[in-house]
Amino acid sequence: MTDFGLEDDFVGTCHGVVKRIAPDAEVIDITHGIEPQNVLQGALVLASTLPYMPDGIHLAVVDPGVGGDRMPLALRGADGRLFVGPDNGLLLVAADRFGGVEEAVELADPAYRLEPVARTFHGRDVFVPAAAHLAVGVALADLGPVVEPGDLVRLELPEPTVGARRIRATVLYVDRFGNVQLNLTSAHLEQVGVEPGSQVEVEVGFERYYAIAARTFAEVRRGDIVLYEDAYWNIALAINQGNAAQMFGAHVGQELRLTVADR
Amino acid sequence: MTDFGLEDDFVGTCHGVVKRIAPDAEVIDITHGIEPQNVLQGALVLASTLPYMPDGIHLAVVDPGVGGDRMPLALRGADGRLFVGPDNGLLLVAADRFGGVEEAVELADPAYRLEPVARTFHGRDVFVPAAAHLAVGVALADLGPVVEPGDLVRLELPEPTVGARRIRATVLYVDRFGNVQLNLTSAHLEQVGVEPGSQVEVEVGFERYYAIAARTFAEVRRGDIVLYEDAYWNIALAINQGNAAQMFGAHVGQELRLTVADR
Amino acid sequence: MTDFGLEDDFVGTCHGVVKRIAPDAEVIDITHGIEPQNVLQGALVLASTLPYMPDGIHLAVVDPGVGGDRMPLALRGADGRLFVGPDNGLLLVAADRFGGVEEAVELADPAYRLEPVARTFHGRDVFVPAAAHLAVGVALADLGPVVEPGDLVRLELPEPTVGARRIRATVLYVDRFGNVQLNLTSAHLEQVGVEPGSQVEVEVGFERYYAIAARTFAEVRRGDIVLYEDAYWNIALAINQGNAAQMFGAHVGQELRLTVADR
Repeated sequence: MTDFGLEDDFVGTCHGVVKRIAPDAEVIDITHGIEPQNVLQGALVLASTLPYMPDGIHLAVVDPGVGGDRMPLALRGADGRLFVGPDNGLLLVAADRFGGVEEAVELADPAYRLEPVARTFHGRDVFVPAAAHLAVGVALADLGPVVEPGDLVRLELPEPTVGARRIRATVLYVDRFGNVQLNLTSAHLEQVGVEPGSQVEVEVGFERYYAIAARTFAEVRRGDIVLYEDAYWNIALAINQGNAAQMFGAHVGQELRLTVADR
Repeated sequence: MTDFGLEDDFVGTCHGVVKRIAPDAEVIDITHGIEPQNVLQGALVLASTLPYMPDGIHLAVVDPGVGGDRMPLALRGADGRLFVGPDNGLLLVAADRFGGVEEAVELADPAYRLEPVARTFHGRDVFVPAAAHLAVGVALADLGPVVEPGDLVRLELPEPTVGARRIRATVLYVDRFGNVQLNLTSAHLEQVGVEPGSQVEVEVGFERYYAIAARTFAEVRRGDIVLYEDAYWNIALAINQGNAAQMFGAHVGQELRLTVADR
Repeated sequence: MTDFGLEDDFVGTCHGVVKRIAPDAEVIDITHGIEPQNVLQGALVLASTLPYMPDGIHLAVVDPGVGGDRMPLALRGADGRLFVGPDNGLLLVAADRFGGVEEAVELADPAYRLEPVARTFHGRDVFVPAAAHLAVGVALADLGPVVEPGDLVRLELPEPTVGARRIRATVLYVDRFGNVQLNLTSAHLEQVGVEPGSQVEVEVGFERYYAIAARTFAEVRRGDIVLYEDAYWNIALAINQGNAAQMFGAHVGQELRLTVADR
């Protein structure tokens, strides 16, 4: 998973490097469409897709600090999965959600890099080679010196504010269909008394909209705004056969306020 | 083949699910660029690409009715190929073009789904698991109860109107290069007397353009509008080294009128 | 590597054709995001990514002359690698950089094509089948008659003009992050006395900007314009955590003038 996009050769070049080191490795591209340099988005996508991936080496690169002094990292999670990426919090939402970090090392041994390392493409020269060497059986500890798991960089995840009838939430993600994922679960909605069929006022900046809480798009009419539990068990806003993000002008990190209407 | 796009993790997540169930299965991504929720476009692309695909399990998801009461489906075509997708007509243009449906079942057995099934991502939780189980040898009949092939949803394909000198046609597809595929074959053009070198008037809305019938772009000058048989044996409009769709403002489903000019 | 993009089924169809002919072949997609019909860009990307690819059959299609009389080609480079693509210069920057062409043939034998060949999709019907047949062990010489390496089409690469304090350079490539790759290496910068920390005036059309020569983005402040050696060892312009191409309005083929500021 990266923020490299697919227009350039960056992803293809990384696949080439994998296959030169680990010809039998199979690669699954989770996505390369993470918003450029959006570490939080990358961390959340890695965490939410992890349960659907086979055990393996989970390589993620969203790395605004490339070439600076942030540490290149490999780690083993409590469930045995291996992760490779920059020490900027990208890997730890996933690792922490599945039991925490058991062992971490700095990618320091030049034997497992492509030398000379280009200062702006550690994906190709540092992270991919490390992941590929792990795939052919190199031990984690051989990649470099041990790092204390407690010393790794962790991201602060945005938390909602939940009142009696109102919730202040943050947009975590906007997908291709314009569905707007919030930092809420169904437990938050239950707290303010939302149930299927409830009308909910959505404030975005100075605009107000009315959404209907529903289990599925099929329960509402075409064009209705729907508040629903999405496929990753987060609460999201959508428009049935429309584009909610476009209507709201929604973007990642934006705040929304939800208010349960009187019944 | 899906309308999931590649910006999000949807496709990568589906690949992960395939590999967890069927580690040895190989996946070919036909495209994930079908226009969101455009079932007709998906059905036509699946049918036109099928002859170029190895025998296998052909999984397609373009599914505006996800979570509603449209049936999730698997079927065997007359030539032995297996298809998996929603019962909204998406699979049947392909299956019918290659001999029809021999056997169809509803994807009802929870043993071959990811439970709990998310109401908005049957691709991941219903269709991919079914396809992957077929890939490891599960029998079609084990996936759920038999459905009568005659009861499956079929799409109405737009038909051209062909007069003595005029054809009313519909845009089926617009590709990256701006080439505009029509619901016509070379037989339709022959009917109205078009041959290589013929001048053809193209009416789009209130605008008129002049195209030249040609076998290949190399036969005309840079910037000329060309009427030609495309690589899937449909008639298409293009501009040599230009973008016809942009010039015409063409979109899928739009009507065009072609008139053979006097010679 | 192609300019087919990923919205349409062109790439997926080619993968299908590979697998029908060579079921055990593995395919690495270098990129399909080459600017439509930009042969020079394709040639440069192929050459710069080649060192990162495993030995194999290197298939590239950027082919504005499809259907005309440009020759379809396969060749063996001095280091044993095989290349397949159109004879428009696309393959030769890479082949020449790694020792030159040892043997070349025209793809003329219909036994190794998909017949009938569509006049507008030689990727599917000519180039991919040739590459796939090479992958299963067909000899280069079996694909068609020998061609004299000296007779192949070669591209003219834009050369910089280097003065005492000034360089006139050309934009070779703009990537997803807006980084602007120039036809310069660090040797050119040394010639005019640029070293890490130097201030360099950048003229683009009638606009002037000031860039700082640096080894990595981490050496400059957010928003600074950086002149640096990129991951393919070309000199490039970037904005730290910004988009240089957007600020400059830069596009491939555009001229820039660099002047070293007084110290």
